[in-house]
Amino acid sequence: MVYKSAAENLPARVEVLDATLREGQQCRGVNFTLDARIRIALELDEIGVHVIEAGWPASNPKDRELLRRLSELSFRNARIAAFTMTRRRDLTPEQDRSLNEVLDCGVDLVVVVGKSWSLHVREVLKTDPETNLELISDSIEYLRDHGLDVIFDAEHFFDGYREDPGYALKAIKAAEEAGARTIVLADTNGGMLPHQVFRMVSDARTRLKTAIGVHMHNDSGNAGANTLMAVCAGASHVQVTVNGIGERAGNADLCQVIPNLELKLGVKALKTGLNGLRRLTKLSSLVYELSGLPKNRYQPYVGEYAFAHKAGLHIDAISKCARAYEHVDPSLVGNRRLLTVSDLSGRSALIAGISELLGIELDKRSKELSEILEEIKKLGLRDVSLDDATGTVALIFLKHFKKYDEKFRVIEWTSIAGGGSGDPKTYGVIKVRIRDKTRVEGGEGVGPVHAMDVALRKALEQDYPQLRYVKLIDYKVILPEAERDTASIVRVFIKFTDGNRAWSTTATSPNIIKASLDALVQGLDYYLQIESLKRTFI
Amino acid sequence: MVYKSAAENLPARVEVLDATLREGQQCRGVNFTLDARIRIALELDEIGVHVIEAGWPASNPKDRELLRRLSELSFRNARIAAFTMTRRRDLTPEQDRSLNEVLDCGVDLVVVVGKSWSLHVREVLKTDPETNLELISDSIEYLRDHGLDVIFDAEHFFDGYREDPGYALKAIKAAEEAGARTIVLADTNGGMLPHQVFRMVSDARTRLKTAIGVHMHNDSGNAGANTLMAVCAGASHVQVTVNGIGERAGNADLCQVIPNLELKLGVKALKTGLNGLRRLTKLSSLVYELSGLPKNRYQPYVGEYAFAHKAGLHIDAISKCARAYEHVDPSLVGNRRLLTVSDLSGRSALIAGISELLGIELDKRSKELSEILEEIKKLGLRDVSLDDATGTVALIFLKHFKKYDEKFRVIEWTSIAGGGSGDPKTYGVIKVRIRDKTRVEGGEGVGPVHAMDVALRKALEQDYPQLRYVKLIDYKVILPEAERDTASIVRVFIKFTDGNRAWSTTATSPNIIKASLDALVQGLDYYLQIESLKRTFI
Repeated sequence: MVYKSAAENLPARVEVLDATLREGQQCRGVNFTLDARIRIALELDEIGVHVIEAGWPASNPKDRELLRRLSELSFRNARIAAFTMTRRRDLTPEQDRSLNEVLDCGVDLVVVVGKSWSLHVREVLKTDPETNLELISDSIEYLRDHGLDVIFDAEHFFDGYREDPGYALKAIKAAEEAGARTIVLADTNGGMLPHQVFRMVSDARTRLKTAIGVHMHNDSGNAGANTLMAVCAGASHVQVTVNGIGERAGNADLCQVIPNLELKLGVKALKTGLNGLRRLTKLSSLVYELSGLPKNRYQPYVGEYAFAHKAGLHIDAISKCARAYEHVDPSLVGNRRLLTVSDLSGRSALIAGISELLGIELDKRSKELSEILEEIKKLGLRDVSLDDATGTVALIFLKHFKKYDEKFRVIEWTSIAGGGSGDPKTYGVIKVRIRDKTRVEGGEGVGPVHAMDVALRKALEQDYPQLRYVKLIDYKVILPEAERDTASIVRVFIKFTDGNRAWSTTATSPNIIKASLDALVQGLDYYLQIESLKRTFI
Repeated sequence: MVYKSAAENLPARVEVLDATLREGQQCRGVNFTLDARIRIALELDEIGVHVIEAGWPASNPKDRELLRRLSELSFRNARIAAFTMTRRRDLTPEQDRSLNEVLDCGVDLVVVVGKSWSLHVREVLKTDPETNLELISDSIEYLRDHGLDVIFDAEHFFDGYREDPGYALKAIKAAEEAGARTIVLADTNGGMLPHQVFRMVSDARTRLKTAIGVHMHNDSGNAGANTLMAVCAGASHVQVTVNGIGERAGNADLCQVIPNLELKLGVKALKTGLNGLRRLTKLSSLVYELSGLPKNRYQPYVGEYAFAHKAGLHIDAISKCARAYEHVDPSLVGNRRLLTVSDLSGRSALIAGISELLGIELDKRSKELSEILEEIKKLGLRDVSLDDATGTVALIFLKHFKKYDEKFRVIEWTSIAGGGSGDPKTYGVIKVRIRDKTRVEGGEGVGPVHAMDVALRKALEQDYPQLRYVKLIDYKVILPEAERDTASIVRVFIKFTDGNRAWSTTATSPNIIKASLDALVQGLDYYLQIESLKRTFI
């Protein structure tokens, strides 16, 4: 039976190679800056992965610059690896630019990708099977001779094995004989199924003495499962990307493979163990933010909704017997049970969160609390998580508990925009009441929301200069209804920071300027309220 | 070895139960209207699933209304099933509302969910193991006595089996003896791994004569793989939802399980076979649209990027030897190779598409074509697919090929919005040149974009009354840059229809009114251009 054979060959630990910086970059819609790639590398090191595949120096100057910058940093856990292909068939290793660029980029570990599917050798490489074996051997030996450790990635290994197993095995044998430290079997087209992977990896393992790894694509939706089945069959090196970003349907997701190995199979996959694992949700968020891709709220382990329990299931019940409802404890991966602001099941947890945030004691049974929950519901904050609306929710609590001290009030606003042949012009005018004074200020912006933002700050910063420290770090517009036209309701989310903490606000209106202004006002108001609460109570 | 044992017990066909209408509804962020659920049911019938689990009549009046409406329709392939729990422990079946509602809702097939994990029996149901077995037997027998076929879903079967296999097996035995036609093993917490599922389903299969099914949640990221492994172990019924929508991280995705079964394992999973399979991408889109969830562009098989090949890989090369680059032919699931408008690899296909759309002959090697591709690139349409910008791209082609006949031109526009204590007011004024006339019109709207829309149509419909047939069916705003504040660039997408065809346009600006107006103008202009081309050439 599978389970028995799996248990027999399960390694005690695996080496994790993260390829986000190279392969994630090939994901449509992703364009990392150089600084973003460095930040991700540092966080991957923190979390405790063994190898960071950073770039292909021969492919473009950006990858070379990244490798140079990384070689100047020191990493606690991770080794940096460069990527290259086997030499071109018409060049010697000495003449091959891709191989030689690797020697000069400051790494001592390299991932070499080569062909193992006879179809690709014939139809794409346009050469004979024997020549391809020479390309593999020559390239690995050349790099080894220059002192580098070599991981060999056998491209299309699984398709190759299925069609021409003899040749696929010959290709990896050639890599072993040339001195590769790890032989990685890649499902490059991503079409394999878990039971097929188990069988093929099991066979390959018996043919080699070298450590076996896998590199799985997700075209059949099985990249994560295939990686696990390979480990069950004895693979001890896994190649993944954060959030599974990669070409087409992506790669095996680090955020899924690592906790499955660590928490479910008992295979050590991070140098830092459970301490690193707790940074997983943060790592996932960081990569979404830096890549510009929208977060997947439903993502296993790290998604915002991954531990969102259905309404009616009381948080108290879950706390008492968590394993009855949860496959793992969310805190192990740095995630948490979801609290949506209108979700009555989260009432006690919501109260605890807000109490802590505002430093005020709240009575669970108070009349105010029912009114607050009613108000939150009316604002349509169902399905909005507390993280996306901390400021909005906190202001409601402050008002109901008479801790709110009005700092300013927007009396009127006007937005004027227009264009013709040149660039459009946009102005905003705002009238604000600050205690007993009324101020009217105007501003110009690149768009109507920006112009209102400029005018509002001009009106407020005279009395509240501390608002200069408050910066916007995200501004999002969604149209929450399924049927959308130019008259639809928009919901605006804004995230703010003062350099120390971050908070968020949200507002809706069919008028985008109104919704944005409401969210802006709340964000600045929240900061002033918290500031003065601190001065009073702390 | 897995593969051998898998092949031994692989069924020739499986029954597919889709639970999108019930379980998908529990997905956070999803709120289907009644009409939406009926449309999905009709499409599920078209595609050829065997069972549609539509709702739980006792839970709310909406589910009762849905079941009533569905019972008035006739379905070609699918049977409609209702959902219920086993009877409450303090009531007889005759007294239990949930069971009796099922008898009255017009279905002849019911899914009964019951406990099989002794922990849940003790801690949640607060009863003894024997009583729970009676709840199962009584409930199934009661429904069978009233002429219904029963599918029994054993909740938490896998967790139960792992902890107390004797009791878990007793629970499903009780369901078999009470006459359930199918026994479904559910991974309710979603934490199982593929090799564990294979082992447990293999064991359960040897204990029962009844058909076995599975119901998998995705908390460990393995819902799809676990479903396949269960089929390899002999399960012949699978429960899925479209796009995997469901609680927390979701359920097994119909759009992944069905093609893996049909195309890779050779297991018949749709009554309509390959004809139904070709509707898969459409079904996925329909459910995203009706649920209000954003599409997952990276989704295996049906995602927009699922067959998006990397730049530099020529479409010609793929056409010549598709299996070298693609795990399956995208047309088998109604998808296609991605064409992004700036992607040179898609040049020949892009030209073919536009030629067909506009009914004009295009020379692949013409100078105009290089200029067009350059212009498309400058508009930043990289990573925008042709589907999201048909109108925008077609207008560029028409202008370059001198087929463009100017119908109107926006000379100037002004937007005024403002608010105070009451609702905000928003007005738009537009000056348009139509051949030798100039028109100035104003309009009021709920927001600035709506007001411009009203004013623009007022100005144009006097000369082009046919624009009345053009409706907006979608309006989207994204902020494409990773770092977003109120001064960020926005990209607007608008989708139009005249009742027969749909087309889309896109534009960017830091000013949302400008970007929206540009996209609106293009959409109306495209319609007028195509109208007059037809009159001239066809």
